[in-house]
Amino acid sequence: MKKILIQIDPDLQASVFDSVVAIDSGVDHLLCHGAVRPDQVQSLVHGGIFTRGPKDLHNTAIFVGGSNVSEGEALLKEVTKSFFGPMRVSVMLDANGCNTTAAAAVLRAGTHLGLSSVNALVLGGTGPVGQRVGLLLAKEGASVRLGSRSKERADSVCTAISEKVESGSLTGVAAGTTDEVTVAIDGCEIVISAGAAGVELLPEEIWSSADSLKVAIDLNAVPPEGIGGISVFAKGEEKHGVICYGAVGVGGTKMKIHKAAIAALFESNVKVLDAEAIYELGQNLG
Amino acid sequence: MKKILIQIDPDLQASVFDSVVAIDSGVDHLLCHGAVRPDQVQSLVHGGIFTRGPKDLHNTAIFVGGSNVSEGEALLKEVTKSFFGPMRVSVMLDANGCNTTAAAAVLRAGTHLGLSSVNALVLGGTGPVGQRVGLLLAKEGASVRLGSRSKERADSVCTAISEKVESGSLTGVAAGTTDEVTVAIDGCEIVISAGAAGVELLPEEIWSSADSLKVAIDLNAVPPEGIGGISVFAKGEEKHGVICYGAVGVGGTKMKIHKAAIAALFESNVKVLDAEAIYELGQNLG
Amino acid sequence: MKKILIQIDPDLQASVFDSVVAIDSGVDHLLCHGAVRPDQVQSLVHGGIFTRGPKDLHNTAIFVGGSNVSEGEALLKEVTKSFFGPMRVSVMLDANGCNTTAAAAVLRAGTHLGLSSVNALVLGGTGPVGQRVGLLLAKEGASVRLGSRSKERADSVCTAISEKVESGSLTGVAAGTTDEVTVAIDGCEIVISAGAAGVELLPEEIWSSADSLKVAIDLNAVPPEGIGGISVFAKGEEKHGVICYGAVGVGGTKMKIHKAAIAALFESNVKVLDAEAIYELGQNLG
Repeated sequence: MKKILIQIDPDLQASVFDSVVAIDSGVDHLLCHGAVRPDQVQSLVHGGIFTRGPKDLHNTAIFVGGSNVSEGEALLKEVTKSFFGPMRVSVMLDANGCNTTAAAAVLRAGTHLGLSSVNALVLGGTGPVGQRVGLLLAKEGASVRLGSRSKERADSVCTAISEKVESGSLTGVAAGTTDEVTVAIDGCEIVISAGAAGVELLPEEIWSSADSLKVAIDLNAVPPEGIGGISVFAKGEEKHGVICYGAVGVGGTKMKIHKAAIAALFESNVKVLDAEAIYELGQNLG
Repeated sequence: MKKILIQIDPDLQASVFDSVVAIDSGVDHLLCHGAVRPDQVQSLVHGGIFTRGPKDLHNTAIFVGGSNVSEGEALLKEVTKSFFGPMRVSVMLDANGCNTTAAAAVLRAGTHLGLSSVNALVLGGTGPVGQRVGLLLAKEGASVRLGSRSKERADSVCTAISEKVESGSLTGVAAGTTDEVTVAIDGCEIVISAGAAGVELLPEEIWSSADSLKVAIDLNAVPPEGIGGISVFAKGEEKHGVICYGAVGVGGTKMKIHKAAIAALFESNVKVLDAEAIYELGQNLG
Repeated sequence: MKKILIQIDPDLQASVFDSVVAIDSGVDHLLCHGAVRPDQVQSLVHGGIFTRGPKDLHNTAIFVGGSNVSEGEALLKEVTKSFFGPMRVSVMLDANGCNTTAAAAVLRAGTHLGLSSVNALVLGGTGPVGQRVGLLLAKEGASVRLGSRSKERADSVCTAISEKVESGSLTGVAAGTTDEVTVAIDGCEIVISAGAAGVELLPEEIWSSADSLKVAIDLNAVPPEGIGGISVFAKGEEKHGVICYGAVGVGGTKMKIHKAAIAALFESNVKVLDAEAIYELGQNLG
């Protein structure tokens, strides 16, 4: 029985990136749907769950992608709402690469130091990738400082995420000015920057003189860097005594996780692959 | 040579249901086109008929689907108009499952009693599925009462359908009120309900006390039932001495017909699979 | 590794013609994108170039099609602009069959007489196919008269094309009236008509009495013929002592070139197949 992936994308043109990775992950037939609105999801999902018998439903799966994470999250919600008891298929969300990127960053950090008792600063922490990085770090037991220009926003995100976290902790911190980020990074072993493209969130002068810092990861792929002085291609190189990664440097791990996640969709028909499940999957890649 | 199915769909998102069934019927490549307007059909069809030699054209076919039967019928008309003598490909219409559903219902009824001399009531008889059920029953020799809230509309549909029928008969009947439907069902061995979702056309009190009734089929998949008291999952169970089917109960047969019809498209390049051809095909499935 | 073709098309419905030919050329997965606007191209291209490693990029390619050549040219420009050093894939432009048609016509002409010292008249010479025919003939060394209703327009097109030509020559000629075309064809061995559908550019009386004429090719597929008296099916037949081709007669060669060009896309990741490269490719088909 052929493996069918239903690619659901809110953008006018469904993501070619997501399509190519799906094919390279072993999908036989891709049903690409662009410009998908939430009210169209039910019919797409029903077409997926009412065509094959329950025993065969693990051969059909859904991927929610596109460039806009909150639109993707809205579509994922409609997808899971459209399931019908055992009549369901596995689904993965990776709009704008949010989950595979966050998982790859935290996994890379974890190869260099134990995460369970570490202090970590997440810049751009209230955005979709930043929230996921914060969640994954905290679940590993880290004490996470979630940075944002607005401490209030950071606090409210922390409150929301904390519900899912048992071991670590999440605290909102203001990180909009040079002074604030200098304070925020103090005592941290890890900094991960997940802010919007085109903004430097952490100048080189600051992180290069942060004594505790061991790993710095910048997830911004478009110049200027989110963390000053870290090349987009950096892949574990040391600079100022700190192990550095750029977006492309994390890309190999991200791609491996993405492909493994697509493949995992076809192992059963009940998976909902969001940040945590995708991170776990990445951990098992060894 | 690869089997290519051109899926033409007037809905904004081409039907995933139709895509999956096509793949499971052995199609190698699916060219999905959603939001198709009639004036776009010629170019799509020409792309199908002018690319492969006449001897290879049976490896290309067209499926017209979507949720709206009259829009589908309009597209089918444009498809057949776009053929060019021997330059043509086989085509199937099954918008909203109209043809495979009607064929499956009549086939299920026919497994329980001969249709050639039976009285049958079709509720929702002027709708796309109801018209097809009426046509198929009458072609088998049944005396069909086509029910509608408006007897006038029912009569005009009967006149149109009767042109295609030699053996049986079609008569319009009013079936909008409890009293009318009580009269309409009197003396019928079969009732098939094909009305719009969300409306009960035949209350349980009425059909349970119709002495002649042997088979009752409700094609409505969304609660409330079109025929009161018949579960959507009913699949030949007796209730009040009547053999009952619901939409899901007919679904297995419908799906078999759908797949066989897709496969049949690739046997030659001249088939036009509408209600009657699809019903015949279902009969031959044994 | 699967061969993926990203089909980019400005038309609302991506061309089925282009899709079928791609499949018949050995493409494993087709990513069809219709209604593509120039500002959407970069994201589509980046999805193609950032998903597979540099060594594997020859397994991904881009086809720009659709019915409108200038829209296709605009998309091709965006495609090549979106490449990133070695991160690129091969791309082919064949909007409205412009390149494969022009190449096929010139190749057919070349099988009957040497092109290097010939006089050739191109009617509809300022249109997308006409320009390409003129370019290819001139590059073979022919003295090309590019005909248009407006000599001024023809001259300016000739100036533009001449930059790419070393051996032959291009001269604009007025060819809007019977008198003008009588003068224009005088002394020519070849006439190729590539005008808009529905207009006769060269009446039979004129070409039948042009003593020098040896080959006449009409690329118009829709009646009336662009060259009076030449059937759309003509495939090298003599009429009035002239070897004649119609659009369908050239079609076999065109189709061979199209398929060879698609196959060639997957030989490396650096090809940009426009008129000249596609013509060369056709020459090598033997």
